[in-house]
Amino acid sequence: MSEIKIITLFEKILDKSSIITGDKLKLRFYHIWKTDIPLESICLLLPKDTNEVSAILRICNDNNQEIVIHGGLTNLVGSTKSSKNQVVVSLEKMNKIIEIDEKGKTVTCESGVIIEDIITSVREKDLLLPLNFGARGSAQIGGAVSTNAGGLRVFKYGMTRSLVLGLEVVLPDGTVISSLKKLIKDNSGYDLKHLFIGSEGTLGVVTKVVLRLYKHPKTRYTSLAATNDYEKVLKLLNFMEDKISNNLTAFELFWNDTYKQMVSDKTMYNKYLTDNYKYYVFIEYMGGDFDNDYNAFEKVIMEVLDKGIVKDAVLGKDEKEQLNIWGIREDVAVLAEERKFDQHFDISIPIAQIGEVIDKIIIELKSCKGVETIFPFGHVADGNIHFIIGKDSDDNDLKSKINEIIYSNTELVKGSISAEHGIGLDKKKYLIKSRSKDEIELMKVIKKSIDPKNILNPGRVF
Amino acid sequence: MSEIKIITLFEKILDKSSIITGDKLKLRFYHIWKTDIPLESICLLLPKDTNEVSAILRICNDNNQEIVIHGGLTNLVGSTKSSKNQVVVSLEKMNKIIEIDEKGKTVTCESGVIIEDIITSVREKDLLLPLNFGARGSAQIGGAVSTNAGGLRVFKYGMTRSLVLGLEVVLPDGTVISSLKKLIKDNSGYDLKHLFIGSEGTLGVVTKVVLRLYKHPKTRYTSLAATNDYEKVLKLLNFMEDKISNNLTAFELFWNDTYKQMVSDKTMYNKYLTDNYKYYVFIEYMGGDFDNDYNAFEKVIMEVLDKGIVKDAVLGKDEKEQLNIWGIREDVAVLAEERKFDQHFDISIPIAQIGEVIDKIIIELKSCKGVETIFPFGHVADGNIHFIIGKDSDDNDLKSKINEIIYSNTELVKGSISAEHGIGLDKKKYLIKSRSKDEIELMKVIKKSIDPKNILNPGRVF
Repeated sequence: MSEIKIITLFEKILDKSSIITGDKLKLRFYHIWKTDIPLESICLLLPKDTNEVSAILRICNDNNQEIVIHGGLTNLVGSTKSSKNQVVVSLEKMNKIIEIDEKGKTVTCESGVIIEDIITSVREKDLLLPLNFGARGSAQIGGAVSTNAGGLRVFKYGMTRSLVLGLEVVLPDGTVISSLKKLIKDNSGYDLKHLFIGSEGTLGVVTKVVLRLYKHPKTRYTSLAATNDYEKVLKLLNFMEDKISNNLTAFELFWNDTYKQMVSDKTMYNKYLTDNYKYYVFIEYMGGDFDNDYNAFEKVIMEVLDKGIVKDAVLGKDEKEQLNIWGIREDVAVLAEERKFDQHFDISIPIAQIGEVIDKIIIELKSCKGVETIFPFGHVADGNIHFIIGKDSDDNDLKSKINEIIYSNTELVKGSISAEHGIGLDKKKYLIKSRSKDEIELMKVIKKSIDPKNILNPGRVF
Repeated sequence: MSEIKIITLFEKILDKSSIITGDKLKLRFYHIWKTDIPLESICLLLPKDTNEVSAILRICNDNNQEIVIHGGLTNLVGSTKSSKNQVVVSLEKMNKIIEIDEKGKTVTCESGVIIEDIITSVREKDLLLPLNFGARGSAQIGGAVSTNAGGLRVFKYGMTRSLVLGLEVVLPDGTVISSLKKLIKDNSGYDLKHLFIGSEGTLGVVTKVVLRLYKHPKTRYTSLAATNDYEKVLKLLNFMEDKISNNLTAFELFWNDTYKQMVSDKTMYNKYLTDNYKYYVFIEYMGGDFDNDYNAFEKVIMEVLDKGIVKDAVLGKDEKEQLNIWGIREDVAVLAEERKFDQHFDISIPIAQIGEVIDKIIIELKSCKGVETIFPFGHVADGNIHFIIGKDSDDNDLKSKINEIIYSNTELVKGSISAEHGIGLDKKKYLIKSRSKDEIELMKVIKKSIDPKNILNPGRVF
């Protein structure tokens, strides 16, 4: 079908203002960090409700038209890239928070709502949406669901998957699968939502979501601690789990270069600890007891200092200090801005082996000509480590060499090549390092049964 | 194919002792509570490893032979019933705990291991498997995974689904899908395990499982509290979430008749609270602080008494008292033994509406001739209520009438007809009260793509 004809079909179901074509496409982009690269697409569509999404998909399915879905464009594996002969659908107009149920502790919203907006809105009702990661100010909830986003509080609250109670999804043929229930427990038939969560928009377009919320903790304290020995990082985690397990909401790790960069002149963050330790651990404590929580947390921090488990530690006394400490952890875009060319990684490694594996990777990376900066950091309590690697060029050989170093070392310890970012287009080649041929074959069987014409986010994942 | 021929094929791949046929089948049964009804089946097979399961399935698939899978036979929806022309496979010989990883906090085991055995084994390493329900002494982990079992600690730790890190599954055609990773985070492609968890063995046979464990809490305290007003039950929950949220591991509710029965002459349990209140709440507190936890818990219990949120309360001082309190909650088989004929229910209701909905259901049930006892109880914090209803006969009209009362009232408030037990054979007729036609159609598409000959646990779910 010609481009013009398919646009004519869209014009029958959408307002003119919801169809972006021609030169106006040049003002759109496919990634929030690549705003200098204009979008390639037949057109970009901006549906305003589920019915419009359904009608768009029906047209595309009937006409074998490939389609790529856009959320907040913060994905790091090329999932939102499109080509000239594909249609792009952005869910940005579907940005209503439909209901906050205070008694039942749920929020129901459209998929285009920005995560930070949900966090802020439910906070006003003394409720917590524990989903929390660096891109929350741009990322949309539909994207987080489609990619099963992780973040800083997975250790305690689980991935996005654990927070989704209900889902409304449009299948490639336009069928709306709606199950917007607020139930924590529902074993009535297959739990279909798990098909769509984490399948990167290849099986359906998420249009509405019901999320589980928690009572907002009354207290939040943060500590930053330093040590030179990975075994002591593990000891520290073990000690915290023993003493304050129920209140431990985050346990994050920086390597020296990463810390150094985050407290350098390039940021506004205060350097609470000197930058000469090998490891820096960010610990978050949340509780319900105003009177005693600070003292309880301070006590365990004093203990780990006394026992020599950590070399130095600081405890955020007030809001300002806490913001500073978490700013260092979260504001990692700074690490990507260091070089024009970079590669991002997001691997899972069995926790006991993280120290040695990352040391080995760093040595191998340093021997690569063209690698200039190496910034590892991550959610160590759940085994997930990120890397941002700055390079002097976009050379393909260098790219492959770096991928090979990271993924082979991951495969050796039965890790995952993608802990939370997904596979998208960029990691397809390496999927076989995490999953067996039979597993990938089964993924294809599922994809084919739900999207037989392969029109929806084609080429993603496998 | 004739019965004899298919048995001949099994004889080529299994020891004679692993094939039970003829009169010996009379000593087997399809449910742990129905031991007076012998099994109907061509034969019962007892594979001893994954390869044998795979070989059995290949034979069945090649010969269009229907097959029913047996775990611990504690399922409450008829999932393990078979007919004379079906083959039954029991996983009871696959009962090895393969590895307990203390540092990584995981356990890897075969699917036929009894849940209580896992709990006990990991307890010795100071680890907790939070999966906990009445039938844990008989139920096998493979069954718990296949049905996404719930239980007493879902509020804090989630359903079985949340505890499964890795899975090995045999597909209907004999293909082994193995992903026995120990990773908390793995977004490398579709998360296939969620297809098999909760699909009641209709998509594959679970053969091995990796489960996430937690540090075993140092302290465990239990309280039993009573009130006459459902709003106060909600207030109590709210108060607990505010004050001891992180330590609250169970919050269970009994109605008066249920409590009365459990502390009657028919059991050995002490009646710590008089039996004249409408509601009894079981509260479990787990923590990491030997010195202060008992006092912290006692303080909030005193507060709810002082504030009049509860009328009376008792706190289990020692192991013996705690066992008594939890025995009342867990030993619910007693409720089923009260009458020869009974019906069991397992519904989810939005938590704010539980009080009124259950009152309404009880009134309607009482007006049914033939209903003799009504025992509601459940996991109120996650909206899941069970009913055991004793009757004077097995009359089909009465059965339908009772189903109709329970399920229509559930449907009215957008609840679920099965919170944790699943659908099996017994609840198929009512699936449409919880799920839309399009949802059920999609379940069938998935089933057909993975089990095109419909040989595996046929007729279950839909």
